[in-house]
Amino acid sequence: MGNQINSLIKTYPDFPEEGILFYDISSIIETSHGLKLVVDQIVEIINVHSPDFLVAIDSRGFIFAPPVALRINAGVVMARKQGKLPGKTIFEPYGLEYGKDVLSIKEDPNLAGKNVVIIDDLLATGGTLAATERLLERANINVICSVVVIELDGLDGRSKLTNPCHSLTTLPS
Amino acid sequence: MGNQINSLIKTYPDFPEEGILFYDISSIIETSHGLKLVVDQIVEIINVHSPDFLVAIDSRGFIFAPPVALRINAGVVMARKQGKLPGKTIFEPYGLEYGKDVLSIKEDPNLAGKNVVIIDDLLATGGTLAATERLLERANINVICSVVVIELDGLDGRSKLTNPCHSLTTLPS
Repeated sequence: MGNQINSLIKTYPDFPEEGILFYDISSIIETSHGLKLVVDQIVEIINVHSPDFLVAIDSRGFIFAPPVALRINAGVVMARKQGKLPGKTIFEPYGLEYGKDVLSIKEDPNLAGKNVVIIDDLLATGGTLAATERLLERANINVICSVVVIELDGLDGRSKLTNPCHSLTTLPS
Repeated sequence: MGNQINSLIKTYPDFPEEGILFYDISSIIETSHGLKLVVDQIVEIINVHSPDFLVAIDSRGFIFAPPVALRINAGVVMARKQGKLPGKTIFEPYGLEYGKDVLSIKEDPNLAGKNVVIIDDLLATGGTLAATERLLERANINVICSVVVIELDGLDGRSKLTNPCHSLTTLPS
Protein backbone atom coordinates (compact mmCIF):
# COMPACT_ATOMS: atom_id res chain seq x y z
CA MET A 1 0.00 0.00 0.00
CA GLY A 2 3.07 2.22 0.15
CA ASN A 3 3.17 2.91 -3.59
CA GLN A 4 0.17 5.23 -3.78
CA ILE A 5 1.69 7.38 -1.02
CA ASN A 6 5.21 7.21 -2.49
CA SER A 7 4.15 9.09 -5.60
CA LEU A 8 2.97 11.98 -3.39
CA ILE A 9 6.24 12.39 -1.47
CA LYS A 10 8.93 14.78 -2.71
CA THR A 11 12.58 14.40 -1.72
CA TYR A 12 15.17 17.10 -1.07
CA PRO A 13 18.85 16.13 -0.81
CA ASP A 14 21.06 17.84 1.82
CA PHE A 15 18.20 19.22 3.93
CA PRO A 16 18.25 20.30 6.69
CA GLU A 17 21.94 19.30 6.65
CA GLU A 18 24.41 17.96 4.12
CA GLY A 19 24.07 14.22 3.65
CA ILE A 20 20.42 14.07 4.78
CA LEU A 21 17.79 13.12 2.18
CA PHE A 22 14.63 14.91 3.36
CA TYR A 23 11.24 13.34 2.61
CA ASP A 24 8.62 16.08 2.47
CA ILE A 25 5.01 15.34 3.38
CA SER A 26 3.86 18.81 2.19
CA SER A 27 2.80 17.39 -1.15
CA ILE A 28 0.79 14.57 0.48
CA ILE A 29 -1.43 16.97 2.39
CA GLU A 30 -1.70 19.57 -0.36
CA THR A 31 -4.72 17.64 -1.66
CA SER A 32 -7.54 16.23 0.44
CA HIS A 33 -7.07 13.03 -1.60
CA GLY A 34 -3.52 12.61 -0.29
CA LEU A 35 -4.45 13.51 3.27
CA LYS A 36 -7.42 11.11 3.19
CA LEU A 37 -5.23 8.31 1.80
CA VAL A 38 -2.88 8.57 4.78
CA VAL A 39 -5.67 9.01 7.34
CA ASP A 40 -7.60 6.01 5.97
CA GLN A 41 -4.52 3.78 6.18
CA ILE A 42 -3.70 4.83 9.75
CA VAL A 43 -7.34 4.28 10.79
CA GLU A 44 -7.28 0.81 9.24
CA ILE A 45 -4.15 -0.11 11.21
CA ILE A 46 -5.21 1.14 14.64
CA ASN A 47 -9.02 0.90 14.64
CA VAL A 48 -8.88 -2.66 15.97
CA HIS A 49 -6.92 -1.48 19.05
CA SER A 50 -9.48 1.18 20.11
CA PRO A 51 -6.89 3.48 21.73
CA ASP A 52 -8.13 6.05 24.27
CA PHE A 53 -5.70 8.69 22.97
CA LEU A 54 -3.39 9.39 20.08
CA VAL A 55 -0.08 10.97 21.08
CA ALA A 56 0.83 13.48 18.35
CA ILE A 57 4.53 14.31 18.08
CA ASP A 58 5.54 17.96 17.54
CA SER A 59 4.99 19.09 14.90
CA ARG A 60 4.18 17.01 11.81
CA GLY A 61 2.49 14.39 13.96
CA PHE A 62 0.00 17.19 14.73
CA ILE A 63 -1.12 17.03 11.08
CA PHE A 64 -2.15 13.38 11.02
CA ALA A 65 -3.33 12.57 14.56
CA PRO A 66 -6.45 14.80 14.78
CA PRO A 67 -8.28 13.57 11.65
CA VAL A 68 -7.52 9.96 12.67
CA ALA A 69 -8.69 10.67 16.24
CA LEU A 70 -12.05 11.99 15.02
CA ARG A 71 -12.59 8.87 12.95
CA ILE A 72 -11.98 6.49 15.87
CA ASN A 73 -13.39 8.68 18.68
CA ALA A 74 -10.06 9.07 20.47
CA GLY A 75 -8.57 12.15 22.13
CA VAL A 76 -5.29 13.79 21.10
CA VAL A 77 -2.35 14.43 23.42
CA MET A 78 0.53 16.60 22.20
CA ALA A 79 4.15 15.57 22.78
CA ARG A 80 5.86 18.95 22.39
CA LYS A 81 9.32 20.46 22.23
CA GLN A 82 10.53 21.78 25.59
CA GLY A 83 9.09 25.10 26.78
CA LYS A 84 5.92 24.88 24.69
CA LEU A 85 3.52 23.28 27.19
CA PRO A 86 2.24 25.21 30.23
CA GLY A 87 1.89 23.74 33.73
CA LYS A 88 3.72 20.71 35.05
CA THR A 89 5.38 18.56 32.40
CA ILE A 90 7.47 15.43 32.12
CA PHE A 91 10.39 15.83 29.71
CA GLU A 92 12.91 13.60 28.00
CA PRO A 93 16.04 14.51 26.00
CA TYR A 94 16.76 12.61 22.78
CA GLY A 95 19.05 12.48 19.75
CA LEU A 96 17.79 13.14 16.22
CA GLU A 97 19.06 12.11 12.81
CA TYR A 98 20.48 15.65 12.87
CA GLY A 99 20.98 17.31 16.28
CA LYS A 100 19.44 17.02 19.74
CA ASP A 101 16.16 18.06 21.32
CA VAL A 102 13.82 17.62 24.30
CA LEU A 103 10.24 16.32 24.17
CA SER A 104 7.63 16.87 26.88
CA ILE A 105 4.06 15.95 27.74
CA LYS A 106 1.78 17.47 30.35
CA GLU A 107 1.45 15.77 33.70
CA ASP A 108 -2.16 14.62 33.53
CA PRO A 109 -3.73 12.16 35.96
CA ASN A 110 -6.47 11.43 33.37
CA LEU A 111 -3.91 9.68 31.19
CA ALA A 112 -2.46 7.16 33.66
CA GLY A 113 -3.37 3.58 32.72
CA LYS A 114 -4.82 4.64 29.36
CA ASN A 115 -4.02 2.98 26.02
CA VAL A 116 -2.42 5.17 23.37
CA VAL A 117 -1.03 5.05 19.85
CA ILE A 118 1.85 7.39 18.95
CA ILE A 119 1.56 9.22 15.61
CA ASP A 120 4.42 10.87 13.69
CA ASP A 121 5.30 11.49 10.07
CA LEU A 122 8.70 9.78 9.99
CA LEU A 123 10.76 7.00 11.58
CA ALA A 124 14.44 7.76 10.91
CA THR A 125 16.98 6.87 13.63
CA GLY A 126 14.12 6.35 16.09
CA GLY A 127 15.30 8.92 18.64
CA THR A 128 12.04 10.87 18.75
CA LEU A 129 9.74 7.86 18.95
CA ALA A 130 11.93 6.12 21.55
CA ALA A 131 11.94 9.29 23.70
CA THR A 132 8.15 9.47 23.41
CA GLU A 133 7.88 5.84 24.51
CA ARG A 134 10.07 6.59 27.55
CA LEU A 135 7.98 9.67 28.42
CA LEU A 136 4.72 7.73 28.22
CA GLU A 137 6.12 4.82 30.22
CA ARG A 138 7.17 7.21 33.00
CA ALA A 139 3.61 8.61 32.99
CA ASN A 140 2.21 5.07 33.36
CA ILE A 141 0.53 5.30 29.96
CA ASN A 142 0.24 2.08 27.97
CA VAL A 143 1.67 2.35 24.46
CA ILE A 144 -0.12 -0.02 22.07
CA CYS A 145 2.03 0.85 19.09
CA SER A 146 3.25 3.76 17.00
CA VAL A 147 2.32 4.61 13.42
CA VAL A 148 4.46 6.66 11.05
CA VAL A 149 3.78 7.63 7.46
CA ILE A 150 7.35 7.05 6.25
CA GLU A 151 9.99 4.68 7.59
CA LEU A 152 13.57 5.23 6.43
CA ASP A 153 15.41 2.05 5.57
CA GLY A 154 18.93 1.39 6.82
CA LEU A 155 18.90 3.67 9.89
CA ASP A 156 17.93 0.90 12.32
CA GLY A 157 15.32 3.18 13.99
CA ARG A 158 13.00 0.29 14.70
CA SER A 159 15.56 -1.41 16.94
CA LYS A 160 15.40 1.48 19.43
CA LEU A 161 11.66 1.04 20.01
CA THR A 162 10.06 -0.97 22.79
CA ASN A 163 6.61 -1.31 21.19
CA PRO A 164 5.40 -2.31 17.70
CA CYS A 165 5.72 0.31 14.97
CA HIS A 166 3.70 0.39 11.76
CA SER A 167 4.80 2.43 8.76
CA LEU A 168 2.69 3.16 5.68
CA THR A 169 5.72 3.08 3.39
CA THR A 170 9.45 2.31 3.66
CA LEU A 171 11.91 4.39 1.65
CA PRO A 172 15.72 4.48 1.33
CA SER A 173 17.56 6.86 3.68
CA MET B 1 -21.30 29.51 20.60
CA GLY B 2 -18.13 30.29 22.52
CA ASN B 3 -19.42 29.04 25.85
CA GLN B 4 -19.23 25.32 25.11
CA ILE B 5 -15.61 25.74 24.04
CA ASN B 6 -14.76 28.07 26.93
CA SER B 7 -15.39 25.35 29.49
CA LEU B 8 -12.77 23.17 27.74
CA ILE B 9 -9.98 25.77 27.81
CA LYS B 10 -7.53 25.91 30.73
CA THR B 11 -5.60 29.07 31.58
CA TYR B 12 -2.05 29.39 32.93
CA PRO B 13 -0.87 32.77 34.27
CA ASP B 14 2.70 33.93 33.54
CA PHE B 15 3.38 31.46 30.70
CA PRO B 16 5.54 31.47 28.66
CA GLU B 17 6.56 34.79 30.25
CA GLU B 18 5.52 36.85 33.27
CA GLY B 19 2.39 38.87 32.60
CA ILE B 20 1.08 36.58 29.84
CA LEU B 21 -2.13 34.64 30.52
CA PHE B 22 -1.77 31.45 28.44
CA TYR B 23 -4.91 29.80 27.04
CA ASP B 24 -4.23 26.10 26.54
CA ILE B 25 -6.05 24.16 23.85
CA SER B 26 -4.63 20.81 25.12
CA SER B 27 -7.81 20.14 27.10
CA ILE B 28 -10.04 20.85 24.07
CA ILE B 29 -8.41 18.16 21.97
CA GLU B 30 -7.97 15.65 24.77
CA THR B 31 -11.47 14.34 23.94
CA SER B 32 -12.83 13.69 20.47
CA HIS B 33 -15.94 15.56 21.65
CA GLY B 34 -13.91 18.76 22.17
CA LEU B 35 -11.98 18.36 18.93
CA LYS B 36 -15.20 17.70 16.98
CA LEU B 37 -16.87 20.75 18.55
CA VAL B 38 -14.11 23.03 17.23
CA VAL B 39 -13.88 21.32 13.84
CA ASP B 40 -17.68 21.49 13.34
CA GLN B 41 -17.73 25.21 14.12
CA ILE B 42 -14.84 26.01 11.75
CA VAL B 43 -16.49 23.95 8.99
CA GLU B 44 -19.74 25.83 9.49
CA ILE B 45 -17.96 29.18 9.11
CA ILE B 46 -15.89 28.42 6.01
CA ASN B 47 -17.89 25.79 4.12
CA VAL B 48 -19.79 28.48 2.20
CA HIS B 49 -16.48 29.89 0.85
CA SER B 50 -15.26 26.58 -0.65
CA PRO B 51 -11.54 27.39 -0.20
CA ASP B 52 -9.03 25.46 -2.31
CA PHE B 53 -6.56 25.24 0.58
CA LEU B 54 -6.35 25.79 4.30
CA VAL B 55 -3.12 27.44 5.44
CA ALA B 56 -2.17 25.86 8.78
CA ILE B 57 0.08 27.98 10.99
CA ASP B 58 2.96 26.26 12.82
CA SER B 59 2.26 24.50 15.05
CA ARG B 60 -1.14 24.50 16.76
CA GLY B 61 -2.83 25.44 13.50
CA PHE B 62 -1.60 22.03 12.32
CA ILE B 63 -4.03 20.43 14.82
CA PHE B 64 -7.22 21.99 13.49
CA ALA B 65 -6.66 22.49 9.74
CA PRO B 66 -6.42 18.84 8.58
CA PRO B 67 -9.72 17.53 10.04
CA VAL B 68 -11.50 20.63 8.68
CA ALA B 69 -9.82 20.17 5.28
CA LEU B 70 -11.04 16.58 5.01
CA ARG B 71 -14.60 17.68 5.73
CA ILE B 72 -14.62 20.35 2.99
CA ASN B 73 -12.33 18.59 0.47
CA ALA B 74 -9.59 21.20 0.67
CA GLY B 75 -5.81 20.74 0.73
CA VAL B 76 -3.55 21.84 3.58
CA VAL B 77 -0.54 24.14 3.21
CA MET B 78 1.84 24.57 6.14
CA ALA B 79 3.10 28.01 7.17
CA ARG B 80 6.20 27.02 9.13
CA LYS B 81 8.87 28.53 11.30
CA GLN B 82 12.05 29.39 9.37
CA GLY B 83 14.36 26.50 8.48
CA LYS B 84 11.68 23.82 8.65
CA LEU B 85 10.58 23.69 4.99
CA PRO B 86 12.86 22.26 2.28
CA GLY B 87 13.29 23.76 -1.17
CA LYS B 88 12.62 27.36 -2.14
CA THR B 89 10.53 29.30 0.38
CA ILE B 90 9.11 32.77 0.88
CA PHE B 91 9.64 34.06 4.42
CA GLU B 92 8.40 36.92 6.53
CA PRO B 93 9.60 38.14 9.95
CA TYR B 94 7.01 39.13 12.55
CA GLY B 95 6.53 40.17 16.18
CA LEU B 96 4.69 37.97 18.68
CA GLU B 97 2.90 38.75 21.93
CA TYR B 98 6.20 37.57 23.42
CA GLY B 99 9.32 37.67 21.21
CA LYS B 100 10.02 37.53 17.47
CA ASP B 101 9.97 34.86 14.81
CA VAL B 102 9.97 34.14 11.06
CA LEU B 103 7.25 32.31 9.12
CA SER B 104 7.70 30.71 5.71
CA ILE B 105 5.74 28.88 3.02
CA LYS B 106 7.03 26.87 0.11
CA GLU B 107 7.25 28.51 -3.29
CA ASP B 108 4.60 26.54 -5.15
CA PRO B 109 3.20 27.54 -8.56
CA ASN B 110 0.10 25.39 -7.86
CA LEU B 111 -0.99 27.87 -5.22
CA ALA B 112 -0.94 31.12 -7.21
CA GLY B 113 -4.43 32.53 -7.71
CA LYS B 114 -6.01 29.99 -5.35
CA ASN B 115 -8.46 30.83 -2.54
CA VAL B 116 -7.38 29.98 0.99
CA VAL B 117 -8.50 30.23 4.59
CA ILE B 118 -5.85 30.64 7.30
CA ILE B 119 -6.26 28.46 10.41
CA ASP B 120 -4.62 29.05 13.81
CA ASP B 121 -5.50 28.43 17.43
CA LEU B 122 -5.15 31.98 18.73
CA LEU B 123 -5.42 35.64 17.73
CA ALA B 124 -3.43 37.70 20.25
CA THR B 125 -1.55 40.78 18.99
CA GLY B 126 -2.11 39.61 15.40
CA GLY B 127 1.57 39.43 14.45
CA THR B 128 1.49 35.82 13.25
CA LEU B 129 -1.72 36.12 11.23
CA ALA B 130 -0.68 39.44 9.69
CA ALA B 131 2.68 37.95 8.64
CA THR B 132 0.86 34.99 7.10
CA GLU B 133 -1.39 37.37 5.17
CA ARG B 134 1.68 39.23 3.85
CA LEU B 135 3.35 35.94 2.86
CA LEU B 136 0.29 34.74 0.97
CA GLU B 137 -0.21 38.09 -0.73
CA ARG B 138 3.40 37.99 -2.00
CA ALA B 139 2.71 34.49 -3.36
CA ASN B 140 -0.37 35.82 -5.21
CA ILE B 141 -2.65 33.64 -3.10
CA ASN B 142 -6.12 34.99 -2.34
CA VAL B 143 -6.93 35.03 1.38
CA ILE B 144 -10.69 34.66 1.94
CA CYS B 145 -10.46 34.97 5.72
CA SER B 146 -8.77 33.51 8.76
CA VAL B 147 -10.34 31.43 11.52
CA VAL B 148 -8.95 31.13 15.05
CA VAL B 149 -10.31 29.14 17.96
CA ILE B 150 -9.60 31.84 20.57
CA GLU B 151 -9.42 35.61 20.16
CA LEU B 152 -7.86 37.59 23.01
CA ASP B 153 -9.73 40.77 23.84
CA GLY B 154 -7.92 44.07 24.35
CA LEU B 155 -4.79 43.35 22.31
CA ASP B 156 -6.08 44.96 19.12
CA GLY B 157 -4.86 42.02 17.00
CA ARG B 158 -7.75 42.31 14.57
CA SER B 159 -6.67 45.81 13.53
CA LYS B 160 -3.42 44.43 12.04
CA LEU B 161 -5.27 42.13 9.65
CA THR B 162 -6.16 42.90 6.03
CA ASN B 163 -8.84 40.21 5.64
CA PRO B 164 -11.83 39.13 7.75
CA CYS B 165 -11.08 37.03 10.83
CA HIS B 166 -13.56 34.73 12.58
CA SER B 167 -13.00 33.52 16.13
CA LEU B 168 -14.95 30.77 17.87
CA THR B 169 -14.67 32.49 21.23
CA THR B 170 -13.32 35.79 22.63
CA LEU B 171 -11.59 35.78 26.01
CA PRO B 172 -9.86 38.43 28.16
CA SER B 173 -6.10 38.80 27.67
